Parts: sequence; C-alpha cells; structure tokens
Amino acid sequence: MYQPDGVKTSPDFPIPDRMKAWVLGDPDQLMLREKPMPVPARAEDLVRIDAVAICATDLEIIHAGSPASILGGLPFNKNFTPGHEYMGTVAALGPDVDEFKIGERISVEIHAGCGQCKRCRQGMYTSCLNYGKQEKGHRANGFTTDGGFAEYAVNHINTLARVPDTMSDEEATLVVTAGTSMYGLTELGGLVAGESVVVIGPGPIGLLAVAVAKALGASPVILTGTRNKRLAIGQELGADRVININDEDAVEVVRQLTGGIGADYVVECAGTEATINQAIHMTNRGGKICLAAFPHHPVTMDLAHLVKNNIYAYGIRGEGRSATRRAMALMAEKRFDATRIHTHTFPLADLPTALRYARERVDDAIKVVVTNRQVSAIANAAAE
Amino acid sequence: MYQPDGVKTSPDFPIPDRMKAWVLGDPDQLMLREKPMPVPARAEDLVRIDAVAICATDLEIIHAGSPASILGGLPFNKNFTPGHEYMGTVAALGPDVDEFKIGERISVEIHAGCGQCKRCRQGMYTSCLNYGKQEKGHRANGFTTDGGFAEYAVNHINTLARVPDTMSDEEATLVVTAGTSMYGLTELGGLVAGESVVVIGPGPIGLLAVAVAKALGASPVILTGTRNKRLAIGQELGADRVININDEDAVEVVRQLTGGIGADYVVECAGTEATINQAIHMTNRGGKICLAAFPHHPVTMDLAHLVKNNIYAYGIRGEGRSATRRAMALMAEKRFDATRIHTHTFPLADLPTALRYARERVDDAIKVVVTNRQVSAIANAAAE
Amino acid sequence: MYQPDGVKTSPDFPIPDRMKAWVLGDPDQLMLREKPMPVPARAEDLVRIDAVAICATDLEIIHAGSPASILGGLPFNKNFTPGHEYMGTVAALGPDVDEFKIGERISVEIHAGCGQCKRCRQGMYTSCLNYGKQEKGHRANGFTTDGGFAEYAVNHINTLARVPDTMSDEEATLVVTAGTSMYGLTELGGLVAGESVVVIGPGPIGLLAVAVAKALGASPVILTGTRNKRLAIGQELGADRVININDEDAVEVVRQLTGGIGADYVVECAGTEATINQAIHMTNRGGKICLAAFPHHPVTMDLAHLVKNNIYAYGIRGEGRSATRRAMALMAEKRFDATRIHTHTFPLADLPTALRYARERVDDAIKVVVTNRQVSAIANAAAE
Amino acid sequence: MYQPDGVKTSPDFPIPDRMKAWVLGDPDQLMLREKPMPVPARAEDLVRIDAVAICATDLEIIHAGSPASILGGLPFNKNFTPGHEYMGTVAALGPDVDEFKIGERISVEIHAGCGQCKRCRQGMYTSCLNYGKQEKGHRANGFTTDGGFAEYAVNHINTLARVPDTMSDEEATLVVTAGTSMYGLTELGGLVAGESVVVIGPGPIGLLAVAVAKALGASPVILTGTRNKRLAIGQELGADRVININDEDAVEVVRQLTGGIGADYVVECAGTEATINQAIHMTNRGGKICLAAFPHHPVTMDLAHLVKNNIYAYGIRGEGRSATRRAMALMAEKRFDATRIHTHTFPLADLPTALRYARERVDDAIKVVVTNRQVSAIANAAAE
Repeated sequence: MYQPDGVKTSPDFPIPDRMKAWVLGDPDQLMLREKPMPVPARAEDLVRIDAVAICATDLEIIHAGSPASILGGLPFNKNFTPGHEYMGTVAALGPDVDEFKIGERISVEIHAGCGQCKRCRQGMYTSCLNYGKQEKGHRANGFTTDGGFAEYAVNHINTLARVPDTMSDEEATLVVTAGTSMYGLTELGGLVAGESVVVIGPGPIGLLAVAVAKALGASPVILTGTRNKRLAIGQELGADRVININDEDAVEVVRQLTGGIGADYVVECAGTEATINQAIHMTNRGGKICLAAFPHHPVTMDLAHLVKNNIYAYGIRGEGRSATRRAMALMAEKRFDATRIHTHTFPLADLPTALRYARERVDDAIKVVVTNRQVSAIANAAAE
Repeated sequence: MYQPDGVKTSPDFPIPDRMKAWVLGDPDQLMLREKPMPVPARAEDLVRIDAVAICATDLEIIHAGSPASILGGLPFNKNFTPGHEYMGTVAALGPDVDEFKIGERISVEIHAGCGQCKRCRQGMYTSCLNYGKQEKGHRANGFTTDGGFAEYAVNHINTLARVPDTMSDEEATLVVTAGTSMYGLTELGGLVAGESVVVIGPGPIGLLAVAVAKALGASPVILTGTRNKRLAIGQELGADRVININDEDAVEVVRQLTGGIGADYVVECAGTEATINQAIHMTNRGGKICLAAFPHHPVTMDLAHLVKNNIYAYGIRGEGRSATRRAMALMAEKRFDATRIHTHTFPLADLPTALRYARERVDDAIKVVVTNRQVSAIANAAAE
Repeated sequence: MYQPDGVKTSPDFPIPDRMKAWVLGDPDQLMLREKPMPVPARAEDLVRIDAVAICATDLEIIHAGSPASILGGLPFNKNFTPGHEYMGTVAALGPDVDEFKIGERISVEIHAGCGQCKRCRQGMYTSCLNYGKQEKGHRANGFTTDGGFAEYAVNHINTLARVPDTMSDEEATLVVTAGTSMYGLTELGGLVAGESVVVIGPGPIGLLAVAVAKALGASPVILTGTRNKRLAIGQELGADRVININDEDAVEVVRQLTGGIGADYVVECAGTEATINQAIHMTNRGGKICLAAFPHHPVTMDLAHLVKNNIYAYGIRGEGRSATRRAMALMAEKRFDATRIHTHTFPLADLPTALRYARERVDDAIKVVVTNRQVSAIANAAAE
Repeated sequence: MYQPDGVKTSPDFPIPDRMKAWVLGDPDQLMLREKPMPVPARAEDLVRIDAVAICATDLEIIHAGSPASILGGLPFNKNFTPGHEYMGTVAALGPDVDEFKIGERISVEIHAGCGQCKRCRQGMYTSCLNYGKQEKGHRANGFTTDGGFAEYAVNHINTLARVPDTMSDEEATLVVTAGTSMYGLTELGGLVAGESVVVIGPGPIGLLAVAVAKALGASPVILTGTRNKRLAIGQELGADRVININDEDAVEVVRQLTGGIGADYVVECAGTEATINQAIHMTNRGGKICLAAFPHHPVTMDLAHLVKNNIYAYGIRGEGRSATRRAMALMAEKRFDATRIHTHTFPLADLPTALRYARERVDDAIKVVVTNRQVSAIANAAAE
C-alpha cells in the first residue's frame, strides 16, 4: 500500500502504488502506461485527477515536445505526461501540510514558482527566472513536470483552489482558462468598472475574457471574430456588441462605439499579424493591449502608432498572481456561466478521440473534457 | 505697452507689444518674423525665453509639419513656431496666478493636458484624449501650440519647474530630455536601486537615461551603440559597461552580465528593427521595455518571445507625470552632469546654423542650444 | 430670458433668470430664497436639479457651517446653499463644452479639483491642495460652492456621470454614496475577487460598501452593527454574515470566519473609538483599514498592533478617482440594488421635514430624497 | 568534521561541529554557550557571522522574550539566540543551492516568509501569515529562529545580499537599518525625486531614513528631534533642515518650509503620542505617514484630521520587498555614508558591555557592533 515517509494518507482514501498515465512517445505519439504513484514533498499534495480539459497548448506539446524538453535540447521527452487544466480530489498530504484536507475537491493553476528568484519574490511567479528547474522548486505541471492526463498528480499547495459543492467537475476544469483571462484583465493595470474592453478572437480564453470583463463591470465589452456561432456564445456570455470581421471593419466599429477614441483595453486572443495590428489601432491613447496569443513567426507591426499613443502591450502566459482563485471566487458566485464553452466529455481512456475533437473542432467542439468518472463513450455536454 | 486685461505685469519687467519668432513656411522653410505678444489666460504665464535646445523632433516638424497640421489635414502649418526644450524667465502672470513670481527662472515641460478627459483625470496628461484641441485646454508647445524658437511663449503653470540659481541656462534646457528619460524609467513600473538597465542608443535621451538610471541606483547600467565617442560619454555619465554592437553581440554580452537571464529594463532609444529585436531578446522574464524611439515604417518583431516571457513593452512620448520636475530635483542636487551632452550654443538669430549643426552632427554636435543672450557667433560649450 | 455670453442654451429647455434655493442663515437656520440663475464657465454645465439625497454631512453643515466658512474663519456662511448628492438634467453648456448635450440626465460627484496642484496632477483630485479656493478652479458643491438644495446648480463636467433611462431619479442620487464606498474599496489597493471584507456600521455608506464589495467578488463579506433591521438590509445587499455586536464578539467572529487570521479589508463606517479598535484587531497582517467615518474628538487606538502587523490605514473623504462613474457602471448593470437604502421622498419645498426624517430616523429612515418633481407631501419609497 | 548529508562544504573553509552562541536565560540574562553547528536545508546557507550590530529590538527581546516565545505563550525562551543585524561569510550550502559560493561575503535581512500564504504570494513576505511557524518555512532570525549573536547561523538564500569588497564589515551590518528606512520610503507609495520628507526622531532608522531620502532625490528633507548632536549627524547625512522640537514648533516650521501645505511623507521614528500627532498635522492632503516606531500602550490621536485630509498611515516591521538589497546597491555606490551612525565595536565575547553601551548610550553610542574578528577591547569607530 502507498504510504511514503512523512506523507499523510487516510484509510478512507486508499491509494494504489501505481497509476495509469498517458505519456509522450515520439512526436504526436501518446501512450497509456503505468507509472509509480508520485510522492508529494513539503508544501505539496497528491491529487486524484477527476477531470481535465484540453487546451490548444496540449496539442502543441504532444506535437512538438514540452518546454522542458525544448529548453533541455532533448530529441523528445519520452515518458512525460501532459495536461494542465485539471481538477480533482486531495488524496494525500506532503509533510507538514495542513492547508488542505484529504477528500477536498480542488482545481489547479499551472505555475508554482521557485520562491527564490527576483520575480517570485515580487509575487510574479509565472515569470519565475528558474522556469523549468524542478530542483529549485519550480513546477509547471503539464509543461515541465508531469501533468493531468493521468489518474494522479503532485501539486504544490499554492496551485490549488477549493471547488464548491455546487460546481460540477467539468466547470471546475475551466477555472484555469478563466483565470488566464482574469490575469490578463486585472494585470492590465486594474480594469475597473465602466471601462471599455475589446476581445479579439472567440476561442476559450477570448470567450471567458468576455465573461470576466463583464463580471468586473466593463462597458462596453466588444468581441470580434469570424465565426458567427462563436460570436453568439460571446453574446450569451455578456458581449454588448460582436463584430464579424468578415462583414465589418473592426477598428472602425470600435472607434465608433468608443466616442472616436478607441478602447481602454484590448485582449488579443487570435494571434495573427492582422489582428495584432487591429489591436494597436483600436486602443486609445494610454490604453493597454494584452497579448494572450501570438504567431510563432515574427510579426510586422505598426509600432510607431503604439509608441506615439503611449500604448502599453504585454504578453501573458498562464494565470499568475493567484488569478485562478479570483476566477473561482467569481464562478462560485455564478457571476458568469463558464460551462457555455464546455461542449464534450470523454473518458480518460478515450483521450485520443477527445484530442481529435479538440484539434479538428469536430461537432463544433470548444472545450473538450476527459474524466476519470464512468461516462458513456461520447457524452455531449448539451445532453448532460 | 503690453498690459492685457487681468494679466499681472511688473514695471521692473517691461514687455513689448510684439516679439520676434521663427515660423514655419513651406516644408523645410523657416523664417524670422514679428508676431503679437501672446497673452496668458487663467493658470498660464507669459515666459521670456532665454535658451532653447534643439531636439530631433524639431527637425521632423520643420520638415513634415506639426502634429496639429497633420491631424488637421492642412497642406502645411504656416506661421507656426516650433521648439519645445526651452527655459526662461516668468514675464507676466495670467489671471489669479500666484504660484510663480515675475522674474523667476523656469524650465518647461511640453504637455499640458485638457484636465477633463479620462487620461488627464488619471494623471496621465501626456496621453490626453483631447490632444491637439486647444479649445479644450490642451497645449503641447512646439507641437500643437506655438513653441520656443521665439522671444516669448505662453505656458500653463503645470508645465513650469523652477531653475536654481546655480544652474546655467543651457543646463536648464536639458531638463526636458532628462525628464523624458526619467519618465521612461520610473513609469516602467518603478525602477528601483539595484536593478539592471540596458540603454540602446547613445543619443541625448539615451545618454541621459544612463545618467538618470545611475542616479536612481540601477546596477549594472549598460549602454549599447556604434560610435565610441558617444559610448565614452555614456561611461562618464555612469554606464558600468558599454557595448559597441559592431564589435560585440549585445544580446550575448547583456546575458553574461546579468547572470544569464537578461536585464530588468531596456530603454530602446535607437528605433531600428534590429535594436528593437535586440531589446526583446535581452530583457528577462517579467522585465520591461521602454520604447523611446521608433521607425516610421512597420517593424518585424519576435513577438512570440515577448509573449512567452511575460515582457511588458510601452511607448513614451515626452515626459509625463511631472517627471521633468523630478529630473530637475536630481539635477539641482548635481546627481549627474547633463551638460556633458551640451556641445554648442548659437544666438537665436542663427537658428538655421544651429539646426544644421544638430542635423548633420557637425563637429560631433549632440545637444545644440540657441539663446537670446548675447553670444559670439559660434560658442562651443567646451569653451564656456 | 437667461442667455449669458458664450453659454449654449436650447429653445426646448428655457431657463428662467432666477431660481429658488435653500440657503443657510444662522446655525440650524435654513431659508427658501430666490437667487440669480448661476452661469457655467468653461468646462462647466448648468444642471437642473431633479432629486437630491440627504447625507449626514448636510446635517453637520447646516448646524456648524460649511468647510469654506470654517476655513475662512467667518462667523457663519449666510446665503450658502448646501446639498451634494444630487442628480438632474443638463440645462445649458459653458463655452466650448460638447461632452454633454442639453436634456441629458446626469448624476454628480462632489469634487472638482483645481487641476494644477501636485495631487490633482496625480489624479487625486479629492485631495486637492487648493481645497476651497474657487479662484483656482476648485469646487466642492454643497461644501465650498453652492450645492443641490436648489432648482439649479453649476457643475464642472468632470463631476457628471450619465444616468441610464432605466434608472429612477431617486436611485441616481445614491451614486455618490455608492461611489464613496467604491473609492474606499478599490483605493484600498485594489480589492480583488475572493478577498475578505468586513464593513463596520450599517449606515448608507456601510450598506452600499457591502453591496459594492459583493459586486466586485469579495468573499466573505461581513457586516457588523447594532440594529438588526439594518443588518437584515445588509444581508439583502449581499452580506454573507452579519454580526450584531451586542450579541457577539465581532473581532472573535471575524477571526473564526477568516481561518484565524482576520480580514483582508475593513471598512470602518461607524466612527467610534470602540469600532476603530475593533477594525485594528480584525485586520490581518498586511491588510488594510479604510476609515470612512471618524469621531470629532481624539481617539485612543492600539497603534502598536497596527504597526506590528504592517496594517495600512487611510481616510477617505468623498468619492475620488472617478469612482462615482464606476459605481454608476455597476448600478446601470443592476449588480446591486441601491434603492434598498432609499426610504422616503419629499418635495424640495418640504426640505425641513425631510431633514428631520433623516436626522431623527423617523419611520426607520435611511436615505431621504427631496425632489423637484411633483410629489405628494410624504411619499414613502415603499409605496412607489 | 561537519559534513551533513546533502550540504556542500569546502576544504578551504573547514567548519567545526559545535559553535559558541549567546543564549537567553531568564529575562535580561544572556549566557555564552556551546551549541551544535546548525544545518542548512534546501534553499538555505550556513553563514559564518563576522559582525553584528545591536538594535533596540534586541534589548527588548533580551528583556521580554522573543516574539516566538510570546506568541507561543511560553514562560521564557531559554536557549534562544537573539541578534538580527549581521553580516558574514557563506560557509556551507544547503542542497541544490548554487546562488551563492562558499567564501562570499554577505549581509542579511531578517524575514524569510513561508512562500505559501496569501501575503508571501503577493511578495509581502514581511507580512507572512505563517509568522513564527518554522515548519511552514517562515524564519525571522533573531526573532523566531536563532540569530546572530553567535559564530554561525542558517539563512534562507532570499535573505542574503552580497557585500562588495570595498565595504567594511561594520558598514555591512548597517544594511538592515538602511533597508528598513528604504522600505518605509519606497513602500510609502513610491517616494520620487523632488518630494518633501520629514523624519521624526534621529535614532538609527531615522538618521538612515534621512540619508536614503536624500539619496533618492527627496527635497527638502527635514529632521526633527531633541538632541543637537544627533541632529548635526542628520545634517551630515543630508538633512536640508533640522528642527529641535525643544526650540521650535515642528508642525509650524514644516508648514512654512512646504509652502503652507505640509510634507508629502513623514517617517515617524520616535514613537511617542506627541510625535505621532505632530506627524498627522505636518502631512499634506493625500500625503503618507510611515510609522516605524510605536509606543506599547494605546495612543490618543487626532484621527479626524487624518481622515479629513485623506492621509495614508501604515506600520512597517523590518525591511520587506527586498529593500535590503536596494539599500545595499545605494551603499555600494557610496550614495550615503551609513558609517556615520556606527560609533563602537566590541568583540563578540564582550556582548554584555556592547549591549550596555547601546542601552545607556554610553559615550554617545548610536550603533554598537560586535565582531568575531580580533579587536581591541573597546575600539571607537572614530579611531578606525
């Protein structure tokens, strides 16, 4: 039986010595394997994973390798378990941990900084200068340390947020996405009620950026994109106006809607050269652009416009500054319905199918969740 | 005699009814003309201009027109007086002004916001949303309202900073440049002692950015450029290390000097595509890039690196948030010697020659000053 | 007919030359008089007052004089019109004003700073260093310049916020109170979702502090007081827990509800020595106390506890940093129902009765509103 | 020989198995004892202590017990080693530590937060909510964990700052004091050049607050106190004006020196009821008061003045937000001469004499340092 030294377990929550986990093989190869049960250290918990959502970054990692393997210059990162948008149940406690109890439902955020570098000491743990160095205490589950496409994972307690009883497993997996949007909006210098926000790109982060902006009192909240179905979901989540850029000039319409000056904030979630330049031209003097997406190749930008108008631009990777907990607080109060972006659920064993749905947007998939609960082969969220 | 209604004058400081002023004609044409003496309104002073430094932007305005003419779509802005880096003496007070006394020496900053828009209400008056609208109270002398290549100008009292007796006229003109650098560094989120700074480009703003960074306790302060003479001046102003990018790989050297992680702040004052991309690659995770210069054409940038590393980037135009007064406070305490960048002085009547020295860097000119005092035809600062 | 030079009026909105206004006589004496119609200057509007709420500070000013008279050392401020929580309709525009249109419904905030002092230049116009000096541009209607217990008033356009059609006049008067609470919470360093808030004292500011905190996602929100009726209203406005300090030890209960450490924020709206010390002892390490009320006599405080625990404390007077507009944005979105604190409405002519209801809490009065509309002598809000 | 598992030592730096350390006995009893050599854990170093300065808090702890013993409700904390303002040499490295090298000279700051609580995650580790809980990772050497009146101590690497070769051991011990002052000034919301600062009380923290304020460009810097000798040292450290409150009305003089409005910042280091009320009355609207000292009994304050003027007040305990490293950066650049407050040096064995000098201000003692180097019995700093 699993009972490592210093780790607190409970007879009510027996843990096997081994677990199933999906692992990377060669590029685009994913295999279900057995691994030894991981062991939480000081300030860590063992988490039984109950549900995990698929993110576009997972598809990249499965195809191109994890940041850890890329940074390390390895040919490929065999045996690594991806998956980072998960929730579950506290299964065992590392030494001296009393912040959580065995049996509590929790969701996770990705980054646990080293706690030692300049950035971590400023509270900016997602910019940890020891990124990828597990020996320094850094963890980014699903990126540099084993993640959530498995039965169990180890998490630093800083990465856990309690899930209220009233929230489903599927909804709880969406907290990472909402937290990323929230980080972008509040880190933009403190979005306050009454300010104008444009979100470019109705993907999961964009759609929840709409929802979070509205929940924080932004007005107007404008969403641009190309697919009317997605834009309609944005309206349900609170967009005051949607713009299909195939039909309208987004920059022009935003200027009209904002008294001719442009928006206070633009959250760029499409990541194309065209939309990045739109973002620059629809932001007002002194306004801010949050770059939540980006192309992998160099981008040709109208930087002169940005400089001449005192515009601030910055990238975010992940959720930072405990934004996941703030997103959870809003979701616990039902300030917005994140489940509108959850479309499909599959059992963990069907991960390859789930990934295909996510990659190819089969059946208009947005967020696809895999779960360790017993579910029928393909359960569309609409049927739940 | 000059005595407009409500304006306070002094018998000790008689003011003529007309003044000499350089005015724009056609592109690249500048003529010395007579104008009526301007009249200060509420919260404004009349300033007798004693000295004015030439900025690269002046050369652009003389060539291409002022922002006001460009925004207004005019063919060219005839009769407009450029010049924005000046100092002088308070000559008359607008109605109810008691913040300054006639006869006090003052230097100026450029922007007086409207005081009514969202940005001005936040204290961000250089991002005034009524830029160029004088009827709303906005002024940017030398850009949208008459500037300093003249005998007198009107200034909002917010744009004035007292000059100590121990400071020469020429040094006082440099406060605008130092204030711009200071705004960039302190607005970068609060540069604090002990942080690392790279300045790219040893022009006037870059050189004073080195001086200000050092005065604020930054360490190390690194300066990159191509001209060894300029780099040597940077060393005198406090650069711990200079990099001639013709001889060394700036990104590589900065990484070495910062423990492999890159600098906390990069101030980009060169404005080329190459140096902007260098800035991106020499900034550490969570670090900041201040764009103080920019090319007029679109720039191809490695935005992915910026986003993946949570880097903040922003443009500054001018000095903002009273940075000129803070720069003056440091210069009054002799924390750095701005006069190291002052190279030539000409009488106001010789403005065309002065502009040529600045444009063509005749005799290694950096900052060229014109003055209303009696000076010999060409007085090199070194000879003062 | 009213048509001052430079002022824009509309034939659809005729304005008489004189108006009725309540004015101060001797202490506690208030008289209905005629005054000349005031004239808006640059950046000002003339407002027809439609409704005005009574604040406890109004009662103080009627009794003890306005800050202007106290600062000026006058025996009493005869002919001054108090009243500062009002809303109305734009009736005429000062020179060059195009930000508002005649006929628009607006509510006000109190402070228009001078725009010239250090604090105004930082955006902190409620801390204007030229407080009370109208010649410098400072206005605080109802405090240092004529206020809202009248038919018309002049307002700086910075003090106006548009009222949506869906909002009643009475609700719109409550925006000043909500804005004050909002200023306290967001100025506290940026209350973010999920943080814990205690509000001490269920007066108007305290009750709306509960509503605003909840709207911003605070959790838990705890309200303490002595009157169960008021505490019940706090619950309706979103308090997760109320504490009657006659029945329970507030410090002890707050500690229990916050995992033993105390609350992140405490908003002190009772202003007694006992509650100020409770605030100190129920705030966690590094937490913040907003002092929204205060006793007029010196207070004996456990300052050692505050210092040893790195607690921040600060006072607020009024609404600042455009908080009224942010509060309006939340109220326009129906994020909370401020009308729960509105209890009575009287015609302007019955102001003395309205003041008595407010002062003596007749019929459980909380917010009493007077209106220039035709209303029956005493219209209880419950009957509307 | 000392060689614990996982700890890196060097043959060039042999470490004995036991060390000498002063330990608390009963109140006011201090004994020199042998203790086992402490062992650094992950992210910790073993430090050989070379010099340690005496702080007033040390005297309190020796008299009344450490915070740990007080929090823990123990009768007294026998065997505890106080002392927290020390510097020394890295002697051994905990597991995986490569941030420092054996043999490097370092100075310390006091607090290492748990890294897990809300405050630590915000970067506010001096407000750690797990204060005193070593099992959670919190350390405050000399307060809750063994400190510097010994031959060796264990320090978290976050608490170390490198000492340049050009800085003496004695000067390096003063970095904690300077860092506390710096934290107070920069945490006050970002003191910027040109702002006015009053320091009340010319003790060590007050005197270095003068020096730091001046180094950051504050102007004017005003120091108040009662002892002319101390005030004279303040002038040498940069005070533009000193006020002996026995001779002048400090509030009145500060108002005159600041154009009638009061100072932007007041650092209160005297901790008496009278001076706290002076602080309140000499701060301008919107200004800030840093409470660096406090009386142990309740204080009667003019809170109404504070609230009516939007004044911010807050306590600081210790140095926080890496301020010690920033202070070190300024001291390494010789921006101020902290050694002006160092008056006496004794060998560690003479700690009781050193404490007496500090407590009774024998021979005008300000900062008394004890050292593990060989020093003559009483070496007055003046003779160095």
